[in-house]
Amino acid sequence: MKNSKNLYGVILAGGSGTRFWPLSRELTPKQLLKVFGAESLIWKTIKRLLPLVPQEQVYVISNDKLAEEIRTSLITEKEPFTKVGYLIEPEARNTAPAIGLAAVHLSSVDPDALMAVLPSDHLLGNPDEFLVVLKQAADLAAAGYLVTLGLKPITPETGFGYIKLGAELKDFSGAYPSYAVERFVEKPDRKTAEQYMKAGDYFWNSGMFVFKAATVLEEIERLMPDLYGQLAQFKELSLNEWKSEEAKSIFSGVEATSIDYGVMEKSNKVAVVPVKLDWVDVGSLTAIGDFLEKDTRGNAISGNVIDIDSENSIVFGENRLVAALGLKDMIVIDTHDATLVCPRERAQDVRKIVDVLKARKAEEYLVHRTMYRPWGSYTLLEKGPGFKIKIIEVKPGARLSMQMHHHRSEHWVVISGTARVTRDGEVFDVHINESTFIPASTMHRLENPGKIPLKVIEVQNGEYLEEDDITRTEDDYARS
Amino acid sequence: MKNSKNLYGVILAGGSGTRFWPLSRELTPKQLLKVFGAESLIWKTIKRLLPLVPQEQVYVISNDKLAEEIRTSLITEKEPFTKVGYLIEPEARNTAPAIGLAAVHLSSVDPDALMAVLPSDHLLGNPDEFLVVLKQAADLAAAGYLVTLGLKPITPETGFGYIKLGAELKDFSGAYPSYAVERFVEKPDRKTAEQYMKAGDYFWNSGMFVFKAATVLEEIERLMPDLYGQLAQFKELSLNEWKSEEAKSIFSGVEATSIDYGVMEKSNKVAVVPVKLDWVDVGSLTAIGDFLEKDTRGNAISGNVIDIDSENSIVFGENRLVAALGLKDMIVIDTHDATLVCPRERAQDVRKIVDVLKARKAEEYLVHRTMYRPWGSYTLLEKGPGFKIKIIEVKPGARLSMQMHHHRSEHWVVISGTARVTRDGEVFDVHINESTFIPASTMHRLENPGKIPLKVIEVQNGEYLEEDDITRTEDDYARS
Repeated sequence: MKNSKNLYGVILAGGSGTRFWPLSRELTPKQLLKVFGAESLIWKTIKRLLPLVPQEQVYVISNDKLAEEIRTSLITEKEPFTKVGYLIEPEARNTAPAIGLAAVHLSSVDPDALMAVLPSDHLLGNPDEFLVVLKQAADLAAAGYLVTLGLKPITPETGFGYIKLGAELKDFSGAYPSYAVERFVEKPDRKTAEQYMKAGDYFWNSGMFVFKAATVLEEIERLMPDLYGQLAQFKELSLNEWKSEEAKSIFSGVEATSIDYGVMEKSNKVAVVPVKLDWVDVGSLTAIGDFLEKDTRGNAISGNVIDIDSENSIVFGENRLVAALGLKDMIVIDTHDATLVCPRERAQDVRKIVDVLKARKAEEYLVHRTMYRPWGSYTLLEKGPGFKIKIIEVKPGARLSMQMHHHRSEHWVVISGTARVTRDGEVFDVHINESTFIPASTMHRLENPGKIPLKVIEVQNGEYLEEDDITRTEDDYARS
Repeated sequence: MKNSKNLYGVILAGGSGTRFWPLSRELTPKQLLKVFGAESLIWKTIKRLLPLVPQEQVYVISNDKLAEEIRTSLITEKEPFTKVGYLIEPEARNTAPAIGLAAVHLSSVDPDALMAVLPSDHLLGNPDEFLVVLKQAADLAAAGYLVTLGLKPITPETGFGYIKLGAELKDFSGAYPSYAVERFVEKPDRKTAEQYMKAGDYFWNSGMFVFKAATVLEEIERLMPDLYGQLAQFKELSLNEWKSEEAKSIFSGVEATSIDYGVMEKSNKVAVVPVKLDWVDVGSLTAIGDFLEKDTRGNAISGNVIDIDSENSIVFGENRLVAALGLKDMIVIDTHDATLVCPRERAQDVRKIVDVLKARKAEEYLVHRTMYRPWGSYTLLEKGPGFKIKIIEVKPGARLSMQMHHHRSEHWVVISGTARVTRDGEVFDVHINESTFIPASTMHRLENPGKIPLKVIEVQNGEYLEEDDITRTEDDYARS
């Protein structure tokens, strides 16, 4: 690759992953899930890029709230990514505006910037091959092409769009031949998909792109002039100002459009590198079945599950017991607070459940019971009128912010490790099997001074018990 | 009825209801469930008898551990039954030995005793009609018949045995004609069941019987001489001694046999009263579908459930969210700690799941998270290495025993009401939003002196946290 210094990673991470509920939640979308191995999908996506792109040149684009969760997640992985940058979309408007925003920022930082645009929810089995492809795509992009990666179909998939190859671009030599695009086609029906597979010159539209920031902006200017005008206003704003009301107000007029529809399908600068990658798009819950090893009856089973006689089913549990008996082509997903049961063929409609939950404002199902924080995690065990019970885990050496709650008192029982408690200026240690009490309106801090994780049962009492009743005066993690 | 003074109720309640898991557990079998209305099935069974049989003449027969749970349940219902008697089966050996034991006891108490033998898990929609039937059966029984109630089939059910009517017993006049039995037939296949329905003289074998204690013992002596010899040894034992090792040792040699197979099918003293009752045998989870009102697509749905597009399915939840999408003829049962998913047609096989659980010694699935006690209830919220968290609810005016634990300390946070705590002789009140601490090996008592329920979060710490680490010195409910 000729231009490695100018290559940047742009990770699209604004999706709320509603088709992955109940594993995903609004603030824990699928890119943050550790269902597919020990690390999250977004971590894997970035890790895959690092041999070609330094962390400092990787940007995650997402909304403000979610970006904070992603940051927390990435800095708390075993191999933490602390130098990744974050670009804030004022509102979710599909991929064209998000990519446009990233292009605006990158072209201001580096006029020759090349962007490798990657969804945050793909699994790849052969990362080395991916890097070979990416290098070739970058070379094409440097020559002014909008490059898309086309994946060789391995099943007649009806859930993806396809790309029909045009003439080979013979000027470019690389590991793979490159092609012009004859046309992009929408998600086909089963029969058409089977014909595409047989034909051999149709490839899955992977949603992975490489282009110069300047090139894509030129094409947006030509093909989506309204969006270009709106993006141009962001050039005047600092990255922090992208979170502002002004930015929101500009973005509220932006039309939600995919980069495929808005640019790729209409531009004459498009090239495709057709490749064969061991690739899974984590699009719906059936991806779990593609990922997990199957038993002799075709079931993908994980967690505390008893199965008798099921076939071709996905049964995914956590600690709670799930008993499956005689299921056929079913999906059962069990989490701490919600269970989903549906036939495999209805996996795409799971978002309809989330629509109902949103309409009901059933927020408990839009966030997870366990929330990860830079200092550790907390898990909601139970709530009822006037009380909440949590398990708080604090990593060795870590501490929560110095904080105060106006509307609740907190009772802490230490069940593992030693707690150092600051309460109204006084500092004392609470050992395993001991308890203490923080009255409302009292400044306090919880710290783990020890070498093993600290676990505390917290019982909150009060008339208002939401997370936003918190006033922080000091914080090791720069939260306000 | 001529002999109402001599009529006794014998409620068969030894079943562990494995086909009703996860709603039922070993110590909360289906007869104790409140799934079918506000009171338990066994309470409803006894209540139905009371117009004819005084409470003092009603006996529940069950095993020792379960009898204690049943007693607690019956005395804590809104209309408590405190005078019911309990007969202890040393081990479960099907209905013939259980009925034989009850006959031994009743014939010693009252030589003319008539026994109405009733399973504890039937639902009846027309209790007045049932009493009419029962009176007639009692008159037949007084004349020396072994009477069985035959139910008019309303569906070609393959899960029940059938009775073919013989000649009418013209000597007896009553609300219903009575018949001799031509033969008992085993559970038929679907086609045969349809023929039985058409024929009109086949009735479901309900498992409800009325006979003289003396008559059934005579027939056991004649037809099951081994069992008779074993039962005879119980005549020498007091009711309390039925729990003894001696009783267990006698019973360990008893063969498990149903009264149908052992006596009814072979005796020539059998009569049947064929009746039409609005009756549900709570035999498997499909009974929930028969009981609940159905929606327009034939679904029986209860609890915190979101359903989209399901048909003819049973979705039964509690507080946790269950999302059903596009189910057909399925059963989903969700409880605090376990979820079951199976097709309706596999409902009978749910016991196979329980077999696996028993083999795994997965005790958490054999008891429920909430256990009812004479003073209130406790609910296990979470357990982990070295800790358990419970919510304890104490009724106004009630108190737990004076007790001590060797291996655990307890931290109490009051979240509703006022707790009166006795700790090492000292008595003090703990108010809402306050907490206290009971060290290991300290005598203590928890009492609700107030007018509203007391709710306490209890965090237990220690190396051994089982319920049997308890030493009681005083108890309002005579437990040791």
